[in-house]
Amino acid sequence: MRRISFQDGITYTFGPSLTPIATVRSGETVEFVCQDACGGQIQSEKDTLADLDMDRVNGATGPVGVIGSRPGDVVRIKIRDIRVAKLGFESIVSGHGVLGDEVREPRTKMIPIEDGIAIFSKRIRVPVRPHVGTIGVAPAEKEWTTFYPGDHGGNLDTKEISKGSAVYLPVFQTGAQLAMGDIHALMADGEVCVTGIEIAGTVRVQVDVVRGYPLKRPLVETADSWMTLASAPTLDEAAKLATHDGVELLARGANLPWDEAYMLASIACDLRISQDVDPWRTAKLVVPKSLVRRLPRG
Amino acid sequence: MRRISFQDGITYTFGPSLTPIATVRSGETVEFVCQDACGGQIQSEKDTLADLDMDRVNGATGPVGVIGSRPGDVVRIKIRDIRVAKLGFESIVSGHGVLGDEVREPRTKMIPIEDGIAIFSKRIRVPVRPHVGTIGVAPAEKEWTTFYPGDHGGNLDTKEISKGSAVYLPVFQTGAQLAMGDIHALMADGEVCVTGIEIAGTVRVQVDVVRGYPLKRPLVETADSWMTLASAPTLDEAAKLATHDGVELLARGANLPWDEAYMLASIACDLRISQDVDPWRTAKLVVPKSLVRRLPRG
Repeated sequence: MRRISFQDGITYTFGPSLTPIATVRSGETVEFVCQDACGGQIQSEKDTLADLDMDRVNGATGPVGVIGSRPGDVVRIKIRDIRVAKLGFESIVSGHGVLGDEVREPRTKMIPIEDGIAIFSKRIRVPVRPHVGTIGVAPAEKEWTTFYPGDHGGNLDTKEISKGSAVYLPVFQTGAQLAMGDIHALMADGEVCVTGIEIAGTVRVQVDVVRGYPLKRPLVETADSWMTLASAPTLDEAAKLATHDGVELLARGANLPWDEAYMLASIACDLRISQDVDPWRTAKLVVPKSLVRRLPRG
Repeated sequence: MRRISFQDGITYTFGPSLTPIATVRSGETVEFVCQDACGGQIQSEKDTLADLDMDRVNGATGPVGVIGSRPGDVVRIKIRDIRVAKLGFESIVSGHGVLGDEVREPRTKMIPIEDGIAIFSKRIRVPVRPHVGTIGVAPAEKEWTTFYPGDHGGNLDTKEISKGSAVYLPVFQTGAQLAMGDIHALMADGEVCVTGIEIAGTVRVQVDVVRGYPLKRPLVETADSWMTLASAPTLDEAAKLATHDGVELLARGANLPWDEAYMLASIACDLRISQDVDPWRTAKLVVPKSLVRRLPRG
């Protein structure tokens, strides 16, 4: 199996003309070895977000060219497994996170992971659920830093991008140019303090080029639902876009007129928050597979 | 058991000087008989939101004075049961709902409820989960129409205000002045099309005055979590307030310094959307009872 490490190549931008460090065939399984989101700069509670070299933050391993993928195609990335290191951290700093104006001092907390349990403190232990925070492809036009989520993916911080799920990303450039990083051992919807449990990790994925699905923005498939992800400067705008996409998916996938799908979504599809802390926010509409069994073709 | 009907009294505002139509003692169980949110004006698919007498929309049965409750107290409303009628409806109209600018024609869909199943269409049947859309008390100062959610409760449209849950509302005026209505047989987070399955129903509640919990805004208790609800003109603002309250609850309830609670919330407490369609939006932070077993005293 191919193994692509951050030591082979790491990108801090998703731009239209990324140069691949490797290529994979459609159907191939690949491992991405990823640094933690701070590039190893946080090693103890003395290291805080206030001290970082920001040029080394949120790097994504890659980009990897997907052979045969062309603009208008979709790459499906099935998350086969995520293995994380034994020590992660959370960190807060004034001005960042939902309550950034209430943070007085920068603070870092090291969190050991033992047998799948995050040891937050002696008495607080929480089971981990590792996910990929940043996953994206080369966008259509503008260059985005990896801090941003967008139609190309990027810093989606969506906890369901975890083992057993698949991410669908629209291809804007020949070869797609897939990169990922920013692994979290655990994060809740919102990522309210601006970090999850940030951790180094290795992600095993199967990458497929799929055709005939007109996708404008990222889509996540879990065991029981489809999630249309949308990112925008505000949560309000992101929520509107995610709803737009989800209702369209429901209409086509359940073979309903648009207004029926809109009403059905209101009773059966949760509108949720992926993250409320990145430079753009990400929302998701959750369409149950009981209503849409297969992804509708365009 | 006391039974208070919309025929006894119905309010379309939550103002500081509501006059009670009845009183209940702390600990008493009461039934509220409620019209559907459109006050019975929608009887068939010919009736739409565009034709309504808006002065008769979103009435709340009550207000009911809670004996002994004073400003600074909290009223806890345990939802013992919600029985709904056999026919509900959803309705869409241009300019309302998350995708209000995509709606071309007003449209109403009648939805029969049979044995706990909403018959959306011949092939689409969804189990109901009745909840109370509007529940509130007299606010501190301003008068709010029942369309608005706020610190006093009101049009919270929070699907977890259902059988087995409890709502905690701050008391701003002597006697609290509790009123409720706007029953939904079913609604998803977001209430994206602006209606759930709107339906007449009867809500059996136990009302208690509880003291020593300094509450600024509504709180919902479910079997496994506490949800701090906050409403504001935008989703972004509501999310921030809900997070503020939830982190405070977590800090006090889990006996943690604020910054530890903030970091713990980021990995263990989902930030979610109650509704994204009312004149103000409502968000919630979900604090698991595994972290906070009992509501912390002030």
